Amino acid sequence: MKVRVFVSLKDGVLDPQGKAVEHALHSLGFEEASDVRISRVVDLCVKTDSAEAAKEKGAEMARALLANEVIEDFRVEVVG
Amino acid sequence: MKVRVFVSLKDGVLDPQGKAVEHALHSLGFEEASDVRISRVVDLCVKTDSAEAAKEKGAEMARALLANEVIEDFRVEVVG
Repeated sequence: MKVRVFVSLKDGVLDPQGKAVEHALHSLGFEEASDVRISRVVDLCVKTDSAEAAKEKGAEMARALLANEVIEDFRVEVVG
Repeated sequence: MKVRVFVSLKDGVLDPQGKAVEHALHSLGFEEASDVRISRVVDLCVKTDSAEAAKEKGAEMARALLANEVIEDFRVEVVG
């Protein structure tokens, strides 16, 4: 089953990468851009037949490796 | 307006980051994980009133900075 894990910084956590992209956009003339935040999407296949098991496994993987739960939130979707 | 730019590697392009995550998942005991691919999501605000203009501006920013069109595809959504 195909699983998609969205990993994003928690609200209120500074996003240095987003800040850097924002500055770069401004220097390229895109003054109208603001509040740039960067997130990750991890697509992977899980060897299981049940969507529920795939979603649970995706959450386990997120807690174990894909997300740093001190500063990041994650959301898991089964996409196929 | 809030714009979301999805940036992902083109099909067929090797994803070293995905491979590294896959190996790490296997070493943590998640043998059932495979085909790991990592994408980026860039959320930003664009000072404009029209969704169409925001989407077009998002695409311009993607072409100028956010995506490397040699190896990456991008998709733009207006989310609010």
